[in-house]
Amino acid sequence: MIAEIIAVGSEMLTPFRQDTNSLFLTDQLNQLGVIVGFKTVVGDNFDHLTGVARAALSRSGIVIFMGGLGPTEDDLTREGVAAALGVDLRRDHDIVTAMYKRFAERRISMPSNNAKQADVIEGAIVLPNKRGTAPGQYLETEFDGEPRMIFLLPGPPHELEALWKHECMPRLRECLPPAAIASTVLKTAMLPESAADARTAPIYKKYPNVETTVLAGQGQVEFHLRATAATMDEAQASVDELASKLEDELDDAVFSTRGESLEEIVGYFLQMRNLKLAVAESCTGGMVAERITSVPGSSRFFLGGAVVYSNDLKTLFADIPPLMIEAHGAVSKEVALALAENIREICNADIGLGVTGIAGPAGGTEEKPVGLVYIAVSDGKKNEVVQRRFPGDRERIRRWASQQALDLVRRMLM
Amino acid sequence: MIAEIIAVGSEMLTPFRQDTNSLFLTDQLNQLGVIVGFKTVVGDNFDHLTGVARAALSRSGIVIFMGGLGPTEDDLTREGVAAALGVDLRRDHDIVTAMYKRFAERRISMPSNNAKQADVIEGAIVLPNKRGTAPGQYLETEFDGEPRMIFLLPGPPHELEALWKHECMPRLRECLPPAAIASTVLKTAMLPESAADARTAPIYKKYPNVETTVLAGQGQVEFHLRATAATMDEAQASVDELASKLEDELDDAVFSTRGESLEEIVGYFLQMRNLKLAVAESCTGGMVAERITSVPGSSRFFLGGAVVYSNDLKTLFADIPPLMIEAHGAVSKEVALALAENIREICNADIGLGVTGIAGPAGGTEEKPVGLVYIAVSDGKKNEVVQRRFPGDRERIRRWASQQALDLVRRMLM
Repeated sequence: MIAEIIAVGSEMLTPFRQDTNSLFLTDQLNQLGVIVGFKTVVGDNFDHLTGVARAALSRSGIVIFMGGLGPTEDDLTREGVAAALGVDLRRDHDIVTAMYKRFAERRISMPSNNAKQADVIEGAIVLPNKRGTAPGQYLETEFDGEPRMIFLLPGPPHELEALWKHECMPRLRECLPPAAIASTVLKTAMLPESAADARTAPIYKKYPNVETTVLAGQGQVEFHLRATAATMDEAQASVDELASKLEDELDDAVFSTRGESLEEIVGYFLQMRNLKLAVAESCTGGMVAERITSVPGSSRFFLGGAVVYSNDLKTLFADIPPLMIEAHGAVSKEVALALAENIREICNADIGLGVTGIAGPAGGTEEKPVGLVYIAVSDGKKNEVVQRRFPGDRERIRRWASQQALDLVRRMLM
Repeated sequence: MIAEIIAVGSEMLTPFRQDTNSLFLTDQLNQLGVIVGFKTVVGDNFDHLTGVARAALSRSGIVIFMGGLGPTEDDLTREGVAAALGVDLRRDHDIVTAMYKRFAERRISMPSNNAKQADVIEGAIVLPNKRGTAPGQYLETEFDGEPRMIFLLPGPPHELEALWKHECMPRLRECLPPAAIASTVLKTAMLPESAADARTAPIYKKYPNVETTVLAGQGQVEFHLRATAATMDEAQASVDELASKLEDELDDAVFSTRGESLEEIVGYFLQMRNLKLAVAESCTGGMVAERITSVPGSSRFFLGGAVVYSNDLKTLFADIPPLMIEAHGAVSKEVALALAENIREICNADIGLGVTGIAGPAGGTEEKPVGLVYIAVSDGKKNEVVQRRFPGDRERIRRWASQQALDLVRRMLM
């Protein structure tokens, strides 16, 4: 069964406001085994609304409208849905009376246009809204011969969420077959998206019962797996089996199977082995330290370090000999290694990390182009250094460099 | 002319991810006088995509698809749009060659499925994507006898935005009637939203011809002003008049009237006066340095500094006497001031900045609760220190602290 969520309101078609209710509703629907197939935002316009409603009713079994149930002339959801269904609205006098009472309690006289909120679509059940004046509506009907469940919900999140939980979930639970959805996420670092997909597609395609979504960005490829089944055990077993096959294939590129971020995993590994990290960053300018310290409790595994943006500070804080910079350049394998080794020793840390590169847009040369980054890690016994050439703009280069830096620490700890 | 924006990707139909590109595109379209009439999210499903494309083409003059242009089998935007139009795809060999070259430069062999990204809809123009492998496409055509402009754009924001600005805006500007829309943005730092609105609402309500949107978050309140008029001069005059009234009211809380970020403004002030900054950060863990170095050319005004997360590193890199920490605590006015003064002197900078606080969730006490942050700035002649108590979680506290730190530097330079 596919659901469709329609947010009604012209303000959500400006650059400033966005529908967020649909994230809540999607989570709720998924818990019932229902997948959201479409989301639409439409303005306060009768023709647009009617058209969107017709399209939704023609393709989705559950159609949820949010917003446009208020008392103003702009509020047209009731009218638009009724028109799409080809049925009338009737004014419910019990609702009008209740509204008069509500206003009287607050010692305000009810504006006459408020009565509009008592218009009910023919055949619909009224869903009381304890947190606002606009009630919701629920209708079971047919459209083009197909059974349809239609909900009209108020837009304000605290009204919508309460009404959904009390009035809609119980109704859906009763009508829908019991279903269970299990999901998991595999995260990999520093694997190109196309390579990740080429290696995994032959595997996940063998599991058509598990929906696999591949998300890539910022040096990270994530595999989101989801399975629907009659029981939770069955759904979980499908997801677990595919996850384990994918992990076998991707091996140590996988850093997380429970949703953790790369910085959390690095922190976890450091803590497990009771090690302390220190960093010396040039081109990332503090981004590696910022990501590590975003993890609550990071003082248990992170000492700090230096942002050695100028050459003088590379010498001052990380003891890089000016002659080394002169001989090899500030962006070089030698300097990266010395940053890692020296910051470890100076800070009395167990692991030292050094990053130096050219983030651009200026500063690149033929020999050392924008995007060239050297990253080194040292534990006092062994060192590792990698050279990378990241494409993209300053922000992207810095982000990928910080991702590579964290991944290098992770691999050294594995 | 109405535009419609369609985000393609099953991940945006989960509870975890949301389309955000449409906000950027809406702003860009509004600048051309084009209103967005519909926004849709559809999954990686050929039939759904084709249906959505048909509905959009039947009602909107400009139809923009985002995402689904990658190399995987899930990427079906090209196929879906071609099917909706009833035309074929052809493989563009120039694009295939360029992709091979791109991979070769990075010394990676190209996976064969990448060639899919070179499939072009019959009649479409290829829009080069300088920041990724998937090019965009642009097609002028008719649908049910009506003229239609169709854009296919890559999903990653940094690719989409660059491609839009370089390839799509110029084309639309040429086709559309000139529209006179003037807009401006006033940004303020460290002003509570309710105070900002209470002070400005009586002013902007007197200008009903200027659309004013107040946005708040992360220690920043922004006033977005927009006016439409018959001529650009007239529109600009309305916006400028209101902007100047708001600036008079908000005074030095306003840091930007041309869209610059706070870190850009700080960099601008430092450069103007030929001053160099150094920072010593504890609770922000590198976030201040990261924000400053996100500005291209920041090496001209930023030397670097230290992430003094542990107490030992406060002593090692910023010369904080252990006795001072013992007497006042690491989170204290005294330590913040010493961090600012010492890092300035040690780094041979003109301005020093020190940040120390409790970002939580653990580590708070009755006397020094989570959210308590001291921020100090020193120029060698005078010092300033502020104490703040920020509400919210770890991320919010760190973000606000970095905002306050940058604002303190700005105010010292004013």
